[in-house]
Amino acid sequence: MDNGGKNTLELCTLRSEPDQCGRRARRMGKKLIYNKYRYIGYTDGSRSTLLPQPEWMGVLGPQLQAVVGDTIKVNFLNKSDRPLSMHPHGMLYDKDNEGANMDGAGAIVQPNESFTYTWVVDKDAGPGPNDPSSIVWLYHSHVMAEEEINLGLIGTLVVTRKGMERSETDPAPKDVDQEFTSLFMIFNEEKDKEKGLKHSINGRIFGNLTGYETGMGKHVRWHLVALGNEVDNHTVHWHGQTVLDHGRRTDVVEVLPASMTSVTMVPRSPGEWLLHCHVNDHMMAGMSTRWHVWP
Amino acid sequence: MDNGGKNTLELCTLRSEPDQCGRRARRMGKKLIYNKYRYIGYTDGSRSTLLPQPEWMGVLGPQLQAVVGDTIKVNFLNKSDRPLSMHPHGMLYDKDNEGANMDGAGAIVQPNESFTYTWVVDKDAGPGPNDPSSIVWLYHSHVMAEEEINLGLIGTLVVTRKGMERSETDPAPKDVDQEFTSLFMIFNEEKDKEKGLKHSINGRIFGNLTGYETGMGKHVRWHLVALGNEVDNHTVHWHGQTVLDHGRRTDVVEVLPASMTSVTMVPRSPGEWLLHCHVNDHMMAGMSTRWHVWP
Amino acid sequence: MDNGGKNTLELCTLRSEPDQCGRRARRMGKKLIYNKYRYIGYTDGSRSTLLPQPEWMGVLGPQLQAVVGDTIKVNFLNKSDRPLSMHPHGMLYDKDNEGANMDGAGAIVQPNESFTYTWVVDKDAGPGPNDPSSIVWLYHSHVMAEEEINLGLIGTLVVTRKGMERSETDPAPKDVDQEFTSLFMIFNEEKDKEKGLKHSINGRIFGNLTGYETGMGKHVRWHLVALGNEVDNHTVHWHGQTVLDHGRRTDVVEVLPASMTSVTMVPRSPGEWLLHCHVNDHMMAGMSTRWHVWP
Repeated sequence: MDNGGKNTLELCTLRSEPDQCGRRARRMGKKLIYNKYRYIGYTDGSRSTLLPQPEWMGVLGPQLQAVVGDTIKVNFLNKSDRPLSMHPHGMLYDKDNEGANMDGAGAIVQPNESFTYTWVVDKDAGPGPNDPSSIVWLYHSHVMAEEEINLGLIGTLVVTRKGMERSETDPAPKDVDQEFTSLFMIFNEEKDKEKGLKHSINGRIFGNLTGYETGMGKHVRWHLVALGNEVDNHTVHWHGQTVLDHGRRTDVVEVLPASMTSVTMVPRSPGEWLLHCHVNDHMMAGMSTRWHVWP
Repeated sequence: MDNGGKNTLELCTLRSEPDQCGRRARRMGKKLIYNKYRYIGYTDGSRSTLLPQPEWMGVLGPQLQAVVGDTIKVNFLNKSDRPLSMHPHGMLYDKDNEGANMDGAGAIVQPNESFTYTWVVDKDAGPGPNDPSSIVWLYHSHVMAEEEINLGLIGTLVVTRKGMERSETDPAPKDVDQEFTSLFMIFNEEKDKEKGLKHSINGRIFGNLTGYETGMGKHVRWHLVALGNEVDNHTVHWHGQTVLDHGRRTDVVEVLPASMTSVTMVPRSPGEWLLHCHVNDHMMAGMSTRWHVWP
Repeated sequence: MDNGGKNTLELCTLRSEPDQCGRRARRMGKKLIYNKYRYIGYTDGSRSTLLPQPEWMGVLGPQLQAVVGDTIKVNFLNKSDRPLSMHPHGMLYDKDNEGANMDGAGAIVQPNESFTYTWVVDKDAGPGPNDPSSIVWLYHSHVMAEEEINLGLIGTLVVTRKGMERSETDPAPKDVDQEFTSLFMIFNEEKDKEKGLKHSINGRIFGNLTGYETGMGKHVRWHLVALGNEVDNHTVHWHGQTVLDHGRRTDVVEVLPASMTSVTMVPRSPGEWLLHCHVNDHMMAGMSTRWHVWP
């Protein structure tokens, strides 16, 4: 289960600085700040250099990128105040590396302890025959999963089909210019009270998510994921452009909790456009942002 | 962005006559009537001849039909008492023709004013490689979108793959005999009160939608759309026949708010059949109608 | 509509023994038992030998298996205390054999009466071009459908593509080693009270469903179905393995009420794994079980 550590990521988790997740842009003069927990990534074990974290990632943890045939090793150091884990979707792992269900060595990582997860990116972790050249998988903490997901302990893995990687050192797919990831999820910040339900994209609400910027004619992959509970049925809608979703042409893609799907767009109209959930009450509650297509 | 006005529609909107949307068939002796707003279509700018509106369209606005390569021009005259717009899904438009978000010339059309929208039906507005020969897109008002959608300001655009149109003057696809459209949506008529939630197909409830009539062996395209809020997860079910849904054989198709999908049926059993949402509480609340397959 | 009774099943229904559906594993010392109704199958009209009912089927009625071209005949004897029927999805039937809507001879079978349903498995009941070699259809009672579904009167039909059956006497598909079926549904046992909502897989909750056992490298088909109401949006998630879902690689499959979809898995990691709904509140409410991949 080792490829010589080709794709090795050093991750540590810590209680984050107060985050903008709960800030309601319209409520001027009074800021509501909710503390979130986040996965923070470093380039190596010295934990001195942060992994690049594009603005549009919001509260998401680092996006791990691999090619079918790789092995991912993540050294996870829990700098928070509670037991946590990392449980990946899609990867090949044994019980020690499942990071879930109080079963196996990696199921519970206590505060200030660390564990190195080994996840094999086998062919069953890669794109299916009708998938595009790269697909997305969620990872999240899974000690008390529903609580930890709501705290913000969520990230994604992107797997490129073998032969479609740009080069031996760059696992991104060569047939697209840019890859964006969007998490549609209602964070529950005040124990189920309506006013504490934060309808977010990557943890940001009411247009506070920035950085989705691309240009005319680019090939753009959108990796769409969702999490949450019974009301987290979301319909991702882009204004101005359409996407190809497994051979279906649309501008609305349906996701439910833990859905993971990847679609492709070639922007054909420049401007500042909306990206929002098309469920009426979600859109009104802030599940919306602006994104840009430069001429 | 002009094809010489080949597909030009003159549309005006007006506050409609009282509509049957809220009539509960079982509540004899007492009719509950809710006023809806509707898009009304005319054959030309004289606004003297109404576009054909088959009975099964219910409260839906006119169905615009185009072929990839066409340009759609809609002269929209707002005869209602509030600012409105027309925002199309899927089409290629610039900001002036987006009809949304208070941005651009067509974003807000005041009462008794008009605006001509130009929408280009480019290849990214047409069927994808796994789509059938025609696909459906929604259009709706988008000044205060959630309110106006609930008022009934909803219609559809159908786009036929280039080369699959019947003739230069008939954009309908030549491999199907009939095209039906069904909107699954819960209209909210009494400010969220349970009794005001009208679980409708094309704005009609408890079997009040009529006109879905076809024959044995016909090739029938069903264009399915939905709108609404968090409870508008619908499962469209036909009795007696099955459909082909992007290569999947089924008799239940899932839609969420703003889903747009097109499936094909060849009726193989004659009779009067139910078409209904298979969500138990929606079915009981009236989201059901009868349709006919003649021998 | 007869193939000489090749696939003829004798089914009778009776009020079942108290069932485990409502037993909450954690609530020790106090068992909550809810009575369910079930379809019970016999090998022939003598009703002496029960059809095999693997443990993992839980409260599901017998799984009927056929090949495109077959005719299914079911002699249904209602041994319960209320009028019932059998309504199949997908099959070719006339009004007498629809088993629904108070219309036709088989629409209502009174207590202690019987009716023989004839359902033709035509090509439109079989897998579509993008479906795997076998697909699943629901059947359920449809006199007062929503009540009877909640009572447990639910079963499945599996149809194999012509030419993919193992032999003339074994309709199971030859390209898979095992077929499992999973119904995701919230049974409503105490008139909508939260505590009576039993979030179940095949009618079992909190790990009480047993019998999903397979081995490394087997070809396993999972037939996934759902039923219920507006909150029955479920996301079926397997730990440890992935599935191929109409060419899409994933480990989470979305279902809504009456969804029917079939996916294929080749287990690649041994162990005891979770199968659960990934909707947070459903998972916490017991919609989860363990399954095994033997080395």
